[in-house]
Amino acid sequence: MSNDTIRISVGDMNDIFTDILLKNGFTADSAKQCAAVFTNNSVDGVYTHGVYRFPRFVEYIRKGMVHPGAEPSLVHRAGALEQWDGHLGPGPLNAMQATDTAMGIARQHGIGCVALANTNHWMRGGSYGWQAAKAGFAFIGWTNTTAIMPAWGALDGRLGNNPLVMALPYRDEAIVLDMAMSQYSYGAMELAVLKNERLSVYGGYDTRGELSNDPAEILQSRRPVPVGYWKGAGLALLLDILAAVLSGGLSVHEIARKQTETSLSQVFIAIDLTKLGNHSTIATLLENIINDYKQSTPHAEKRISYPGERVLRTRAENLDKGVPVLKKFWSEILALQ
Amino acid sequence: MSNDTIRISVGDMNDIFTDILLKNGFTADSAKQCAAVFTNNSVDGVYTHGVYRFPRFVEYIRKGMVHPGAEPSLVHRAGALEQWDGHLGPGPLNAMQATDTAMGIARQHGIGCVALANTNHWMRGGSYGWQAAKAGFAFIGWTNTTAIMPAWGALDGRLGNNPLVMALPYRDEAIVLDMAMSQYSYGAMELAVLKNERLSVYGGYDTRGELSNDPAEILQSRRPVPVGYWKGAGLALLLDILAAVLSGGLSVHEIARKQTETSLSQVFIAIDLTKLGNHSTIATLLENIINDYKQSTPHAEKRISYPGERVLRTRAENLDKGVPVLKKFWSEILALQ
Repeated sequence: MSNDTIRISVGDMNDIFTDILLKNGFTADSAKQCAAVFTNNSVDGVYTHGVYRFPRFVEYIRKGMVHPGAEPSLVHRAGALEQWDGHLGPGPLNAMQATDTAMGIARQHGIGCVALANTNHWMRGGSYGWQAAKAGFAFIGWTNTTAIMPAWGALDGRLGNNPLVMALPYRDEAIVLDMAMSQYSYGAMELAVLKNERLSVYGGYDTRGELSNDPAEILQSRRPVPVGYWKGAGLALLLDILAAVLSGGLSVHEIARKQTETSLSQVFIAIDLTKLGNHSTIATLLENIINDYKQSTPHAEKRISYPGERVLRTRAENLDKGVPVLKKFWSEILALQ
Repeated sequence: MSNDTIRISVGDMNDIFTDILLKNGFTADSAKQCAAVFTNNSVDGVYTHGVYRFPRFVEYIRKGMVHPGAEPSLVHRAGALEQWDGHLGPGPLNAMQATDTAMGIARQHGIGCVALANTNHWMRGGSYGWQAAKAGFAFIGWTNTTAIMPAWGALDGRLGNNPLVMALPYRDEAIVLDMAMSQYSYGAMELAVLKNERLSVYGGYDTRGELSNDPAEILQSRRPVPVGYWKGAGLALLLDILAAVLSGGLSVHEIARKQTETSLSQVFIAIDLTKLGNHSTIATLLENIINDYKQSTPHAEKRISYPGERVLRTRAENLDKGVPVLKKFWSEILALQ
C-alpha cells in the first residue's frame, strides 16, 4: 500500500456514507441499506462500484437523477413473473428489493422472475448474486447500461456492457460470477493508463483499427472489444433486448440518448434450491465439481480460482485492516458531509 | 461450391435420415421428428450439427449410448420448476420435449424452467431457441458437455464449452444467440487446418504457451481459449454447475470420465411473452432496437447482423437449391441405409 493511501475502518466508512445519504433525502432505513451496499462493495474489493463511485452517486441524487424517496412498485404480475417500476429510485435499493421479491416468488413457485424498469445503476451486480446465494437461492440476473461498445464489425458504440450475474450458495459462502460484456471496463483501462501498464490481453482497437492492448489507444478509439468478439457482442444485444422486453423499460439505445446513464432495465431470476428433489446432495455435488476444478494443472504457478473466491481473501483483509482508499479521494468524501 | 460437393434436396435428406433412423430402433414419429432436427440444422447452415454429425449419431445408437426408444420422465415438480430424466434418449428429442414442457409451464406461470438430466448431445442448441421463439416465447437454455477447455490459468481441459442459447420472436422469425464458451470449436479449428487458414482472432495457446491463431498448434496443445479469457471460463463453470445442480444430473468432470460424451445435463427456461403487461408494444420495441443496431457505422464495409439473421439467408438458399454436402460424405450416409 502506497503512502497516499489510508485504511478506513468498515464501521467508519459505513457511518460516513449513512450520514451523507441522510443529508441527501434518504430515510434512516434506506440510508443504512444503501450505505451498506457501498461499504460492502468496497470491503469486497470492488472499489470502483463502492467508495470510488459514492461521490458520483451523491452527485446524481443532487442533480435529481436518482430519487432517494422513490419506492419500486408492482406494475404487472403473471404467476412467477413480475414486472416492476423502479421510479428512478436508488439503483442498489431497487435491485435489493427486486432480488428479495424474486426469492419470495421462488419460495412459492420454485423459480421467480422480476423484471425492473426505470431503475438506476445497481453498482456491483455481484451484490445481488451474493444476496440471493447467501439466502440459499441460485440467481441469474443482468442489467442493461448506456451504449459503450460497438456491434461486431462496427465503429460506433451502440451496445451496452450489460453485466450478467450468476450465483449460488457454496459452503458457507457463494460462487458468484459478475461479468460485463466488454473485455475491460473503461475504469480498468483508465487505471492501466495511470499505472502505465499494458492490458494482459487485447482490450479493443487502436486508432488505426488494429487490435491492441494499449489502454490509452482504446480509450481514444472508443472501441473496446466484447468478450469473445462477435460472441459477446451478440450476448450483450440479447441481454439488452430481454431486459427491455421483460421489464417494458428502456433499451440501451434509448438510455444512450439521455445525458447520463439512468432509466435502466434489469432482470432478476431466483431459484429456490430447497425445492429441488436433489436438494440434500447439492453440497456434495458442488464439493466434487470444485475439487475437480482445483486439480487443474496450473500454467506458470497461476492460482486457479472459481468466481467469487478471491473476494473472500480481500474481504477478510479489509474487514481486519480497513478499506484502502486514496487519501485525496477520502477527503472528497468527507467534504460531502 | 466446389466439384466435390453436391446439393441434396431437403425432402431427400429428410427421407433418408428418417429411413435410417427407422432401421435403428426409432418409431415412425420419433424418426420423423429426429430426422427433421438434423435436416433443419443442415438447412440453416449448421452442417457440423446436422448432416455431418448424423453418422456419429447413428454410431452412438448402434453402440447403445443413445437409446432410441427412451422417453423423458418427470422426476420432481416444484411449481414452475420441473426436473426431468432423459433416460439417455436421443438428445434432440429430449431437448424438443423439454422446450415444449417449459413453454407449457410458462403458459400457466409466466415463466417455466425444465432441468433435464441423463440426456444426450442436443446437436445445435439454437434449434430450441428457434422452437420457443417461433411459438412466441423468450428462451434461455444451456447444456453442459464433456471437458475440452482449461480453467483460466490452467493447462488441462476441465471445463465444458457449455453452449448458452438466448432467443425471442422477431417479426415472423426470431433473434437466436447460440454461443459456446470456447472462442472456436474444435470442429471449426479442424476445418481451418484443412483449408490452411489462420483463425481471425486468437483461438488458444500454441505448444510454447503463447496465444495463437494457428489452429494446428491449438489442436496440438489442447488449450483453446474461452470467450473473454477468464470471463468465459467463469461462465462455463457456472453454466455447468447450474445445469448439474438444477437437473440433479452429471457435471462436466463426471461426463469427462466416460468414454464418450453422454449423460449430459441441460436447462430450458421459457417465458410467455403474451403474459407481459407490455405485450402489445414488444414488436415496436424490437423494431427500434434492431433499427438502431443496424445504423452502426460498419468497419471496412462489414455487414452488421444480429444473432440468427444470417441463418435466414442460408436457409432460403438451401431450401431453394438443396443442402451442400461433400459427395464423399453423402455416400457414407447412404451406406447407413
